[in-house]
Formats: sequence, C-alpha cells, structure tokens
Amino acid sequence: MINIAILGFGTIGSGVAEVIERNSSEIKNVLGDYLHVKYILDIRDIPGAVNDINIIVNDPDIKIICETMGGKEPAYTYTHLALERGISVCSSNKELVDAYGVELSIIAREHNCSYLFEASVGGGIPIIRPLRESCGHEKITKIAGILNGTCNYILTNMRAGKTFDEALKEAQDNGFAERNPAADIEGHDTARKIAILASLVSGQKFSYEQVNCTGITEVTLQDIIDAENENSTIKLLGVYDSEGPYLTVAPYIIPQTCPLYSVNSVFNGIMIHGTIVDDLMFYGRGAGKLPTASAVVSDVIECAKTLGQNINNNFADLKPAEVKPTEPPESKFRYLE
Amino acid sequence: MINIAILGFGTIGSGVAEVIERNSSEIKNVLGDYLHVKYILDIRDIPGAVNDINIIVNDPDIKIICETMGGKEPAYTYTHLALERGISVCSSNKELVDAYGVELSIIAREHNCSYLFEASVGGGIPIIRPLRESCGHEKITKIAGILNGTCNYILTNMRAGKTFDEALKEAQDNGFAERNPAADIEGHDTARKIAILASLVSGQKFSYEQVNCTGITEVTLQDIIDAENENSTIKLLGVYDSEGPYLTVAPYIIPQTCPLYSVNSVFNGIMIHGTIVDDLMFYGRGAGKLPTASAVVSDVIECAKTLGQNINNNFADLKPAEVKPTEPPESKFRYLE
Repeated sequence: MINIAILGFGTIGSGVAEVIERNSSEIKNVLGDYLHVKYILDIRDIPGAVNDINIIVNDPDIKIICETMGGKEPAYTYTHLALERGISVCSSNKELVDAYGVELSIIAREHNCSYLFEASVGGGIPIIRPLRESCGHEKITKIAGILNGTCNYILTNMRAGKTFDEALKEAQDNGFAERNPAADIEGHDTARKIAILASLVSGQKFSYEQVNCTGITEVTLQDIIDAENENSTIKLLGVYDSEGPYLTVAPYIIPQTCPLYSVNSVFNGIMIHGTIVDDLMFYGRGAGKLPTASAVVSDVIECAKTLGQNINNNFADLKPAEVKPTEPPESKFRYLE
Repeated sequence: MINIAILGFGTIGSGVAEVIERNSSEIKNVLGDYLHVKYILDIRDIPGAVNDINIIVNDPDIKIICETMGGKEPAYTYTHLALERGISVCSSNKELVDAYGVELSIIAREHNCSYLFEASVGGGIPIIRPLRESCGHEKITKIAGILNGTCNYILTNMRAGKTFDEALKEAQDNGFAERNPAADIEGHDTARKIAILASLVSGQKFSYEQVNCTGITEVTLQDIIDAENENSTIKLLGVYDSEGPYLTVAPYIIPQTCPLYSVNSVFNGIMIHGTIVDDLMFYGRGAGKLPTASAVVSDVIECAKTLGQNINNNFADLKPAEVKPTEPPESKFRYLE
C-alpha cells in the first residue's frame, strides 16, 4: 500500500480521494499496489483532516503528496517543504506551476523526487505526459488550444442566440463560472495554460505575463451570428507560435473544417503542430471534479512507479524566454493560419 | 550513441531513418544520447542493406530493432529471434500485433526487453502510450474510432458529390488507397486496430476474427446526401463496447455535435469513454510515412530510456476474450449511443 496525502480538500482534492476509492482495483492492476489517502490537509475544519503540514512531511510513510489547494500560498511553501524531503508532489495548480514551476522542478531533481502537473492544463485531457513521452522528439512549431471551459460554455451558448450577459449568467447558475468570472472571461486562465504548454515544448520558460491577452468580454451575439453565416464560429484560443516566439490569447474565427470547431460547451481541445507528425488534437473535459482528479491520479501513479527517481517535465532545464510582441489583428478577431 | 536496426525499408522504415536524421538534436535532448541506424534489412537489393537477420541479432551493439516490414512472415520469426536475445522491438505491424502480440509480449517480459507498437494504431497519434500511462486507472467502457485513413478520405470526398467508385479511384490516384483496396474498404484494417485497442483497455485479448465487420462498399452518394440533410455524416467506425463485450466495424451516422464529425480526409480520430474522465478524443494523421515513423521513434526512445527493463503494454497478461455477437442494425447504418 502506498500512502499519500491530499493538500486542499475542495472540488479537485475530494475528487482525487473519490477516484482512488472508486477505481482502487484498476489502480492496483496498473500499479501493482493500492493507493491509500493517509492525510487530508485543509484550512477548514474537516473531520479527520490535519492542518499542520509538518505532520505530513515528517511522516516517513508519505512519499507522494497531491497539491490541489490552488493559489500561490501556502501551496508554494508546502510544495517546497515536501520536495526538499524527497516527497513527490502532483499538482493541479496552474498559477503555482506558471510562477514557480522551474524552481520547484529543480528542487525535485535535486532530491530524487518529481514535481508533476498534468492536471494544471486541460483538466482530464492527457496532454503534458503525451507531449513529454510521445512528442519529445518533435519540433513543435504551433499550439492552439481551447483551454478554458467557462469561456467555451459561454461562446457555445451564444451560438444558441443568447447575449454574452445571458450566457455568462447561465454559466454561473450552472456552476461553470465563478461569481467573479474575471480570470476566465478576461483570458488570464487561458494565458497561464498556454504559457505552461509553450514552456514544455520550447525549452524556454514562458510566463503568464508575457502573453498578449484579450478575453471574450467584447464578443457580441452579432459577431457570433456573422461568423456562423460564414460557416465559422468564435472560440477563445491560447496560441503559441515558435516563429517569434509569440504567445497570444484572443477570440479567433474558427472555420467548420478545423477540428477545434466541434469542441463545444465545457470541453477543451488542444491542437499541436509538429514538423514530423503534422497536426494532433487532444480533446476532453477541461475542468470538473472527477476528470481533473483523474489527471492528478495519473501523476500519482507515475510517481508511485518511480519512487526515488526524478521525472523531469523539462521544467528544471528551462531558461527565461524572450517573446516578441504579438501584432494587433487587422480586424476585431484573429484567424488561425 | 544508441545503435538500432530497421527491418523493412519501405515507406515507414525509410521514414524512421529520416526522422532520426532530421530530428537528431531533439532526440538527443529528450534521450540524452543520439540514435544511429546501424543496419537496414530489406529483401530487396538496397545499397548498404543486409538481408540476414543473424548479422543484426548477433551484434551486441544492437539493443533496439524497428520492425516496419508488415505481414506475418518473416516479421514474426525475426521479432521472436530478437526478443529472445533481449533486443527490444518497436513495431508498426498491426497484423502481427493482432495475431502474435500476446506471445511476443510474454517473450519480451521473460528477456527484460520490450515489444512496443504505438505505430500499429492511429499512425502518428499518441494513443497506445496515453492509454497505458495516463488512463491505466480508468474503467474504459467504450472506444469509437475513425481508424482507417483510406475509408475516411473516400467518405469525405463523397460529401463533395462524388460516387463511391469515383472517390475510390481518386484515393488510388493520390496514393491514399492500394490498387487492391479490399483490406481498407471492407473494414479489415479497422477491425485489427479496434481489436488491439480493446485488448489494451479491457484485460482481455480480442482478435480481429471476433469483430463483426462491415465495410463501406455499400455506402452510396445518396446515403451521404441523406445524412448531410440531417446535419450528420457517415463515417466508418471501429467500436468497442465493454457491455457485452461487443466489437463492431461498420458505417455509422455521426451527428454534427460529435467531435468525430470534423475528422476528415486521411485524419483519424479515436474517442475513449472512461467512467471517471468521461469522453476523450485523440486526433491526427492515421497513416503516412513521417507521422507513422514518428510513432515508431517514440517507442524507440522509450526503449532506449529503459534498456534492460520490460515495458508491458499489458498484452503479456491478456487472456482470450469472449465476445457477444453484435446485433444487426435496425436500419442500413448504425448510430453511436
């Protein structure tokens, strides 16, 4: 039995516990052992939970921690503490990966453990591991991704004739948008995710602040109708272009012939262009309790298979990137080349 | 430098050599070493090629072989010989994987080497490794895949108003269909691929002969027009349903709302349903020299990273599956549930 701890018992953290329980026999099959949640840490008063990280990192039984707290602190301090003691950390926290991913990956490598973050981009979609394990030998020249389920839900519902405000309210009522939706609809969430993906494929660390970022707040129902009349639709994309390099988040016109056209509602789709493999797309639920938890569990299993070793997502080797300013679009919307 | 051999210097085999040369620095980055093609084996008289497998398997420099010959013999004998000597084999040969994949995987495990076959399904699409590494803890209840580029090219061109015969001839003229297209258009190629995928996710070995198989030869231009008028189209799918289990290859009606609807021309798309992660789709070029070679190279790199170890795609543990007869469709075409 392999003991783990979950830091932050919110939506994703409780999902991790649920996946480990529901799929225990599948996990045993693939890992050769069971996973057991020995500790839950939460700042709220949850029965059975601890609130002192030292209890967890001082327990020699614990070799793997799931960090599903979100935000920079105390996630950064806790992750740092764990990795320094050789405890691998599996994170869904894109903000932390963007801000401190390089530093934390170096600490993991120095202490023969791993800092993995499959769940930080694309929810349940396997994307970071396939980029590393299946596409590491490719020259990736472009990434174009629908990376935010909230925006995609809003834009999909606008295709049914709703205004932006109506579609946003419906997303909030259905739990697909926060009460303060700024991070989603202004594109910052997408910017963090495309910066992480660009870093993984380029050998350079791109940060969220380097992304030329426009959200969807200016997209009108008439814009959507106009696009549909041209057999196209509008999607918020995060785009990385190695020729520059450029990093852009903006609403794009997507023609019906592009596979991203059919990525609707809360689903995400990530297109990758490699000079050998040509176009790939990875599609699935980009958010949600169980799909995101499934990605965290895939990282836990990989850490459990490689205890005492470092798996390097290449973040430990990245140097800060220089990006070129993205040129302004010639019209209100951008087009995929 | 890691020395490899390529068996069969046709389209895919020569593609492997090209990928290794063109992307040598990316391979060095990800592997920490260069790959070098020390031997090419081909039955044809190619300058520099050898035609005796013993030269290769007797060379202690060779730890990895790419089997890109296709067909059962001599691929089976050569693969067997190599694995028995602890030489890993990376194969694009779906016929061999379907017929002897279990036996060859057991031999690989016994000799601390690997039998990998990412390129046998979906061409350049990372599918077998993500199923193993990212979805091994999922209960996969359904797979529905557009797995044959030739059929998809024909059906896509029929949407432009061509008859089946016209579209087939165009596919042949453009090199997307063989002169004898039976294996593609009668569905046998798709059947082999869905049998391999079903085996990977189910813990049971399904064989090609167990697939209820209908091709696309009876699909008429009028059928396509009728489907389009219902905002749908017709695609040849390989379908695995764990409730049965059932294995079916047949033309399906695909509505515009399904991501498979936008998988056109020679592209493939593979939808996976897991009880935790929900729907995933993997999309890319399902055939072609360089994309398929890229998948072979991804296997070579994995073998090179794990010399002396066995990577088990789970095939070594599979028991023969029993399948239920697929019920006949209520109309000419099937529908995805």
